[in-house]
Amino acid sequence: MNNPLPDAQFFHTLADAADKTILAHYRQSLTIETKYKQDVRFDPVTQADRQAEHVIRDLIGQRYPEHAILGEEFGENDSQSLLKWVIDPIDGTRPFICGLPVWGSLIGLQQAQIARMGMMSQPFTQERFWADGEHSWTSGPMGHSQLLTRQNATLANAILHTTSPELYSLHPQVKFAELTQRVLMTRYGGECYAMAMLAAGRIDLCLELSLQPYDIVAFIPIIEQAGGVVTTLQGHRAEAGGQILASANRALHDAALAVLNGE
Amino acid sequence: MNNPLPDAQFFHTLADAADKTILAHYRQSLTIETKYKQDVRFDPVTQADRQAEHVIRDLIGQRYPEHAILGEEFGENDSQSLLKWVIDPIDGTRPFICGLPVWGSLIGLQQAQIARMGMMSQPFTQERFWADGEHSWTSGPMGHSQLLTRQNATLANAILHTTSPELYSLHPQVKFAELTQRVLMTRYGGECYAMAMLAAGRIDLCLELSLQPYDIVAFIPIIEQAGGVVTTLQGHRAEAGGQILASANRALHDAALAVLNGE
Repeated sequence: MNNPLPDAQFFHTLADAADKTILAHYRQSLTIETKYKQDVRFDPVTQADRQAEHVIRDLIGQRYPEHAILGEEFGENDSQSLLKWVIDPIDGTRPFICGLPVWGSLIGLQQAQIARMGMMSQPFTQERFWADGEHSWTSGPMGHSQLLTRQNATLANAILHTTSPELYSLHPQVKFAELTQRVLMTRYGGECYAMAMLAAGRIDLCLELSLQPYDIVAFIPIIEQAGGVVTTLQGHRAEAGGQILASANRALHDAALAVLNGE
Repeated sequence: MNNPLPDAQFFHTLADAADKTILAHYRQSLTIETKYKQDVRFDPVTQADRQAEHVIRDLIGQRYPEHAILGEEFGENDSQSLLKWVIDPIDGTRPFICGLPVWGSLIGLQQAQIARMGMMSQPFTQERFWADGEHSWTSGPMGHSQLLTRQNATLANAILHTTSPELYSLHPQVKFAELTQRVLMTRYGGECYAMAMLAAGRIDLCLELSLQPYDIVAFIPIIEQAGGVVTTLQGHRAEAGGQILASANRALHDAALAVLNGE
């Protein structure tokens, strides 16, 4: 019941190991396989994804053998612990393959199904973004600083991001086109890096229609502890994935949800 | 008539000065102004754009006072030289504002209206991509190497990139949807960084519908001297901008143009 959360330093230890494994493959000749999932024509996975998840799972298993683990490539272990690690070794395998540095390694930690801590590591740009349970932080080429979302962002001055426009025609009940008409600017293709920039106060809305738990659990605390809001389009908690909106502040979130839901 | 091309080192000198000017503004509080141009609702420009173009123009003027210069922010000088520098201090002001490192400083050099040398500098990732008049090169965190496009890329295994899906509805004669159905994967939002990754052999097709000369002149030699092809959708040289396709090889280019033109 009373499991303490780990120290944030352990997330850095996990990311250090993943970074090294993944950078050895970045922009090298890759063997790309395709996994078929709902809604996508081409769902690539590389050796880098699998090796990095192995490395992260091994380190967690050594330190916290009782904890639960869910990873994109190797699924769930059989622990019933209330503490569950939720891992995507390379979120953004497509930009990884294209050489665009907007992918990241995502490591989240849930306690009783609520995301409490998380990290995104981008080793090519040498950046990290993480939530320690109370606040969110970044380190990188420009130094170390607290992450704070844009508290004064409104719909009219908001920057909206979504990774791909292609899914929206399959989900006409989501009023995406209406939202693009209400915001300042809509951008595409930023993958998980866009979520990090929302936490950093540079993007105000991130909308994704088909997230898995390992795509979002790490970001829930990073965004919430930076002052933002993350929910499903129905306003529920986002840990299970699905259709997810992240926003820089609560008023903006409510306004954007109303537009998206046609209210 | 017989003007020699400058040494590639001079491009690095220009980029060094631009990098320093621009990084001082990156992810800082920005004063964003809007320039209105055709086809775009929001066309931002920042102090960083203007200061960096000043710095580049000053250095060119000191070294080559007789050369022509065309820059995005300050237009053309009154030189009639056959050598013309074509500059976009920050190509991708939108991702610059969003904090996504897919923008770059573009410096191209035309001789008698044909692009001969060019550089893209991305100072946050510490990368450069350039053409020295014969070959294309990159330097960055992973070292120094020659840029070579993917000579065996075919339509069926090609990765297609375009910055924004929003313009295609205005240009129904460009069969973009048909092309997306023929390639392996379509990606969005990579701006000039996607062109660099085409030169690097990681992306195979870059399509843009509304380029200015300063958006493309630097990339023509970078892509051509890496083995690729850049033309308008009518198959003409791309120095004047417009609707532009860049491809990893000639056969792929011809196949993609045929699809886009509905042939």
